[in-house]
Amino acid sequence: MTLPATTLQIRTLVRHNGELELSLHEEPIPQPAANEVVVRVEAAPMNPSDLGLLFGAADMRTAKASGTASRPVVTASIPEVAMKSMAARLDQSMQVGNEGAGVVVAAGASPAAQALMGRTVAMIGGAMYTQYRCIDAAQCMPLPEGTTPAEGASSFVNPLTALGMVETMRREGHKALVHTAAASNLGQMLNRICIQDGIGLVNIVRKKEQEDILRAIGAKYVCNATSPDFMQELTDALVATGATLAFDAIGGGKLAGQILTCMEVAANKTAKEYSRYGSNVYKQVYIYGSLDSRPTELSRAFGLTWGVGGWLLTPFLQKIGPAEIGRLRQRVASELKTTFASHYTQVVSLQETLQLPNIAIYNKRSTGEKFLINPNKG
Amino acid sequence: MTLPATTLQIRTLVRHNGELELSLHEEPIPQPAANEVVVRVEAAPMNPSDLGLLFGAADMRTAKASGTASRPVVTASIPEVAMKSMAARLDQSMQVGNEGAGVVVAAGASPAAQALMGRTVAMIGGAMYTQYRCIDAAQCMPLPEGTTPAEGASSFVNPLTALGMVETMRREGHKALVHTAAASNLGQMLNRICIQDGIGLVNIVRKKEQEDILRAIGAKYVCNATSPDFMQELTDALVATGATLAFDAIGGGKLAGQILTCMEVAANKTAKEYSRYGSNVYKQVYIYGSLDSRPTELSRAFGLTWGVGGWLLTPFLQKIGPAEIGRLRQRVASELKTTFASHYTQVVSLQETLQLPNIAIYNKRSTGEKFLINPNKG
Repeated sequence: MTLPATTLQIRTLVRHNGELELSLHEEPIPQPAANEVVVRVEAAPMNPSDLGLLFGAADMRTAKASGTASRPVVTASIPEVAMKSMAARLDQSMQVGNEGAGVVVAAGASPAAQALMGRTVAMIGGAMYTQYRCIDAAQCMPLPEGTTPAEGASSFVNPLTALGMVETMRREGHKALVHTAAASNLGQMLNRICIQDGIGLVNIVRKKEQEDILRAIGAKYVCNATSPDFMQELTDALVATGATLAFDAIGGGKLAGQILTCMEVAANKTAKEYSRYGSNVYKQVYIYGSLDSRPTELSRAFGLTWGVGGWLLTPFLQKIGPAEIGRLRQRVASELKTTFASHYTQVVSLQETLQLPNIAIYNKRSTGEKFLINPNKG
Repeated sequence: MTLPATTLQIRTLVRHNGELELSLHEEPIPQPAANEVVVRVEAAPMNPSDLGLLFGAADMRTAKASGTASRPVVTASIPEVAMKSMAARLDQSMQVGNEGAGVVVAAGASPAAQALMGRTVAMIGGAMYTQYRCIDAAQCMPLPEGTTPAEGASSFVNPLTALGMVETMRREGHKALVHTAAASNLGQMLNRICIQDGIGLVNIVRKKEQEDILRAIGAKYVCNATSPDFMQELTDALVATGATLAFDAIGGGKLAGQILTCMEVAANKTAKEYSRYGSNVYKQVYIYGSLDSRPTELSRAFGLTWGVGGWLLTPFLQKIGPAEIGRLRQRVASELKTTFASHYTQVVSLQETLQLPNIAIYNKRSTGEKFLINPNKG
């Protein structure tokens, strides 16, 4: 095929006057360097981290549409109090999309690049909400025969995050896990991994449907945070599994603290004598998302042997190094249609991505509503 | 001298019906074993950790006095919601007092114990609010000639905590410190250590008098959390010192989160490009006290590269091991009247410790009001 001269891509811009602008931008497709390939992007998921970059701190209830059908523009206001957190990206038109998949349509001269010609590949590296992505061959993972771009679009962020949670558990000396917002694509992957690897996993959700989703795939411990007996039910599950490490996608409100409180109660069930500082069992909650943007509220009714912190995939991968990353990626590739399968509710074009009714749906970030972008959708 | 047969000591008891009872209890002084000594306790400080054990979760506004002048009894109610945190100490009459100092009046047969006979020693090990304490010789530190028990009473908790903060900073790769409630005895020690060792220290206080106390002993960075420009002033001090580690005695409210927010702003002042997850500079707040018992409120406006956790002296000492502990203790002993000097506002007997007007003063836990107990005060 002949490569077009330009590629259309989504851009996000935060202006210093407090306005967010989303638009489509056309730019030349570069000639691939020796180690690079050009990929026709056919599938890129909208992960929470992508939405964070796309919308920044804007209040999307203020969103307005303008532009044309083929070149829609969305603007929205950013509350003044949130502008400080936007300081580092002010007035820069930014590309979006952490990961995606597609077909290699041009390749540089190197053997590694040439080997990918015509292959369907998954990619990580940003700027994936574009029709054609020029990228280093090393950032591509060739997908097994018979795998579509849609099936391979989420090969990195969710799978490596789920595997990273299990690996973090092992490295930091915990024996079981707690996960919140547990019915998400990521949460379902984590359940399949833990079932396969024989690891205790306590799932925390907020809705009956989410409980059902998880029980249907074999989850043993599912606690509903809206249950009147939530604290007791969570404590029981913690005693049963011995989980002292939680990964929390919610962030805001009391949940992280409630988890630590229940872990402390569970730890004290086996304590022999009173310690005025609480149990000496180390309890950790890593916050890796911010589905609830309110402050995290910690009651500290759990002694002094605890930690709460941020957790992020990239520094984790830097810590474990290339050999270990390769081992994890290999597992993802070989279990892409089973353990690491993702589900999307809608496939949208770049233009459809910027339509207000669609934004209203996928920006709810609720389990069960996940969009896939096909930048080459007709 | 002849040893009396019994020793009077302070006891704290939380009953399962939600009542706290403080009282004096008389019990036999044991014959010291070979490795033990009996110390006539003449000075024991009331540290926040002692108050935590003494009063538990009781609401001391409900305190009532009974008993006699020589055997006062204090009772108070524990809010029902707080009883869960008392579960492990229910219906156990507990001794109080982490550390103290006095004169060795009897010794077991071992050379180590005999060597302490007649010496003034500092002790760590609990149950110090007693007239005579039988204790392992290894838990005693002989004080230099000319040191009084009052001067040596706080030889462990505050000095080792202050040194432990600096040591933690070094071990975890930070280069400067933030400290809250910074005008306390502990905070003043920390200033003297940091000045001596050339370490940047940002002091956070809430009152003008506390600023003055710290500036008078040479503190360079003092931020008042009640200043309208607190966040800016703290950020400036963080930029100047490069501090990315804080020790927080307050615990409750927004302060820990504000420190992380300012650390993030300080880190981003030198950042080269925008990261949607915030700076990659690791920022840590250790909460080691709970002067404010409200929940800790974290806005999370500081990216994902951060941690908040409990910090406790004992696990820290276990981590660094005996040789390192010995080195720290040696420094404390040799600088007891300078770097590690403590100041008390009142010296009270065991009976006076249980008088409601005194409790009302020392239980405020405010800087500038620190009591020393002399269990042998006439």
